[in-house]
Amino acid sequence: MSTRERIIEAADQLFYEQGFEHTSFAQIAQAVGISRGNFYYHFRTKDDILDTVINHRLQRTNVMLEHWEVEGETPSDRIRSFINILIMNRAKIKRFGCPVGTLCSELIKLDHPAQGDAKELFILFRTWLSRQFVQLGHAEKADELAMHLLAQSQGIATLASAFQDEAFINREVDRLHDWLTSCTATP
Amino acid sequence: MSTRERIIEAADQLFYEQGFEHTSFAQIAQAVGISRGNFYYHFRTKDDILDTVINHRLQRTNVMLEHWEVEGETPSDRIRSFINILIMNRAKIKRFGCPVGTLCSELIKLDHPAQGDAKELFILFRTWLSRQFVQLGHAEKADELAMHLLAQSQGIATLASAFQDEAFINREVDRLHDWLTSCTATP
Repeated sequence: MSTRERIIEAADQLFYEQGFEHTSFAQIAQAVGISRGNFYYHFRTKDDILDTVINHRLQRTNVMLEHWEVEGETPSDRIRSFINILIMNRAKIKRFGCPVGTLCSELIKLDHPAQGDAKELFILFRTWLSRQFVQLGHAEKADELAMHLLAQSQGIATLASAFQDEAFINREVDRLHDWLTSCTATP
Repeated sequence: MSTRERIIEAADQLFYEQGFEHTSFAQIAQAVGISRGNFYYHFRTKDDILDTVINHRLQRTNVMLEHWEVEGETPSDRIRSFINILIMNRAKIKRFGCPVGTLCSELIKLDHPAQGDAKELFILFRTWLSRQFVQLGHAEKADELAMHLLAQSQGIATLASAFQDEAFINREVDRLHDWLTSCTATP
């Protein structure tokens, strides 16, 4: 990875683990192991890094959604890929919540200019899920179901981190799979 | 209100609206309209204020839960009081999310010593809801149902603030009421 890529990766992780506001230039530089001078060569302000981190996440999310699209045979399979990220990422979620939800919440409170860009991360999932629900035969309620599922995953992440409870994640994921089965049964 | 109480109210509101980390002594002093000297007479550090704000919220939450307990005839009525705070506070939730969830998430990321105290706010709701589900005839699954409902309310608050969407809150609250009706029907 180039120095620039390493800065983006380190900033992404630190913004997630300890928040955007709380993370300093010095901490990112230290995590990458470069001087402040070298750092400033790549990024002038923390807002510059934030923009780049959000774009980086958008790209990564797009790749993931395209992968699920290709990999899942049915729309139901594909929605299950979304549900299962709660299991895949449970160790991190249990400690720091959802990277999208917590970043959006923080930027809203800071009234930060990048809050609209961060929201695009939610919009990617919302649009993608909505398309799956259309294919599942729920054209009229597709967006409503997408938002419902997104909300559930957010709530699970928030409580899992507050209570550091992995069993809770597993239980709620089972509920989501049952819910999806009931959606599939009644198109 | 005494100066001390006014400081607590102002800090509570600012921590909610713009986050704990982002709120300065100077901003709280300005909101109350007192000098920094007068301020320091009441609170030495921001952590002192945070402790007091959390205790204040715990007391207020306890009063609210006792009120619901007395007011609601059936456990189902009482759980509906909980669900309806999403409607009662929708204007604020749409802008800043849930005061409990966002404070807990922020303190976890800061690895702040008060994160355990903030979690007590969730525990109050969890314990109270759990007791209602026991009375509803779900003794074995009472805590699971309480956590499920808490998670849903958290997810609704997170997405409502990300999308500034009041219609979404109303729709999800209707879903929660339907869900509770189905819980009441199958004890």
